[in-house]
Amino acid sequence: MKVALIGMGSVGKGVAGVIARKDLGLTITGIADSTSGCVDPDGLDIANLLLNKSKNGCCGDRQISAMDVIKKADYDALIEVTPTNALTGEPAIGYIKTALLRKKHVVTSNKGPIALAYKELHALAHKNGVVLRYEATVAGAVPVMHTLEHGLAGNEILALYGVLNGTCNYILTRMADEGLTYEQALLEAREMGYAEADPTYDVQGIDAAIKLVILANTIWGNGVRLNDVDRTGIDLLTADALRLAEEEGCTIRLIAEAIPRKHILRVSPRILGKNHPLVVDGTLNALTLETDLAKEITLIGRGAGSTETASAIIGDLLFIKDRYARST
Amino acid sequence: MKVALIGMGSVGKGVAGVIARKDLGLTITGIADSTSGCVDPDGLDIANLLLNKSKNGCCGDRQISAMDVIKKADYDALIEVTPTNALTGEPAIGYIKTALLRKKHVVTSNKGPIALAYKELHALAHKNGVVLRYEATVAGAVPVMHTLEHGLAGNEILALYGVLNGTCNYILTRMADEGLTYEQALLEAREMGYAEADPTYDVQGIDAAIKLVILANTIWGNGVRLNDVDRTGIDLLTADALRLAEEEGCTIRLIAEAIPRKHILRVSPRILGKNHPLVVDGTLNALTLETDLAKEITLIGRGAGSTETASAIIGDLLFIKDRYARST
Repeated sequence: MKVALIGMGSVGKGVAGVIARKDLGLTITGIADSTSGCVDPDGLDIANLLLNKSKNGCCGDRQISAMDVIKKADYDALIEVTPTNALTGEPAIGYIKTALLRKKHVVTSNKGPIALAYKELHALAHKNGVVLRYEATVAGAVPVMHTLEHGLAGNEILALYGVLNGTCNYILTRMADEGLTYEQALLEAREMGYAEADPTYDVQGIDAAIKLVILANTIWGNGVRLNDVDRTGIDLLTADALRLAEEEGCTIRLIAEAIPRKHILRVSPRILGKNHPLVVDGTLNALTLETDLAKEITLIGRGAGSTETASAIIGDLLFIKDRYARST
Repeated sequence: MKVALIGMGSVGKGVAGVIARKDLGLTITGIADSTSGCVDPDGLDIANLLLNKSKNGCCGDRQISAMDVIKKADYDALIEVTPTNALTGEPAIGYIKTALLRKKHVVTSNKGPIALAYKELHALAHKNGVVLRYEATVAGAVPVMHTLEHGLAGNEILALYGVLNGTCNYILTRMADEGLTYEQALLEAREMGYAEADPTYDVQGIDAAIKLVILANTIWGNGVRLNDVDRTGIDLLTADALRLAEEEGCTIRLIAEAIPRKHILRVSPRILGKNHPLVVDGTLNALTLETDLAKEITLIGRGAGSTETASAIIGDLLFIKDRYARST
């Protein structure tokens, strides 16, 4: 199957590397970063492009834009892995729409378009006889969407509870394990590369809330938005609060939860027993799905990372290849 | 899609009940227990059959055998949920072969046929253009096979580690939590219905080893057998050993592990830190898959139960319905 790849940050490079390295039946015929692009219907030399990218900072011809690649390259599925803009979803929404209108499948790791325009994009894909898949948007390498779609097919999902932000989980783990203050743990997370210079998006629970919106809309199709999430971050949490929880054999985690029957859609710090399946350490992510037949199913894994996110994207691509691709 | 159901124990009744209750596009056209059977190409009255089964102990006509139903009923997929015979795999292997030769898909929860004759049955299915699925054989409701097949598609599985026997896990949890001896905890497990009168199959690790064989053959196709598993049970474990582990902040679990690069295929009691993802409580099952891209993915859920096992079987049936069914 032929694929075009838009975005050559950590995730894009990871995906390109895996496709080049493994014999998966995938050929990259178009590629673009923020300043350049290149196409070859017979397949690009990925190893060479990755070398170019690391040497010159761009991967192709500066006369060719991402939109040029999306509009003109010969591909079956678009891989959209540009940075998330959580306010507008652009330029990713425009990229995705253009590919769908060309009747190309789309796989994205970009939370913005799915959180902001899922219904519209899903309808557009359906109308054009293609699919939009986004396993990588929630919990990185953890195959949440595949589990909902196949593993738990036939189940009604009654509620979900998740640790969906690795930065917060790292900070809380360090505060509990080492008795650090929030500020100390945040500083450490920054030094480890787990937190941005401006940590607002993570520590105020916005990132977790966006993922919760994506999950809720996928499962229940109830059209919830970021503003519908009752949200409390971890930035006001004191070392004392954690110490008190620890003294009772408990700890605190930032939990995203959706319980439709109780009208709960919330991200907030919660006290959990230390044996609770959602009490994972460090930057791990975890999700518990409460269902009518299987009861509680918990999935744990890495929420970020280049090859980890590539794993989710490759899973989506191979699903499309196996199911829908009209040409290889 | 039309299905025939062979076996009306706890799992069979669970599956029948879910199909009758939910609008899944599945119609049961044949059903058999150990002493009777019945068929109706237009769909059987399941509610009535379940009532009969609970009142009279049989669900149909004593002149009709399971093999009659398999040979003559009009169905697309056979659901084979008769009791496991781990030594011969019969009569299940015969049932499954007969259905495959009729070019019918097969879904089973029966470990015997998969552990003993997977290669042969898989080849027979392939030759006849149908599939054999067995999600329910390992870890009950936990969608292990779907995760391997789809969620982690493109990943190389490097190793697996699992808590695959709920009886042992319950006994070990109770020994650790309450300081019980092995004998006391086993007695309690029996009273709770978690252990058989003869617990050998569970406590000596045979059940976990059979599941390990099924997983290893599914993942690596390496044709391993029960005798290849290096096996130690929990029946010789002392309360002292558990107490010592607990004093170090650890506990003991019966772990099934396969690490091909180290030639390890083993079931044995292992000491784990209490925060380890595989340290689940009570009768829960857990499985960690170590992969090249996603790294470690852990799945936790219920390893047994009527609707829990039905969840896995329904997942397999809906997958077949979606992918392969030629008629509904």
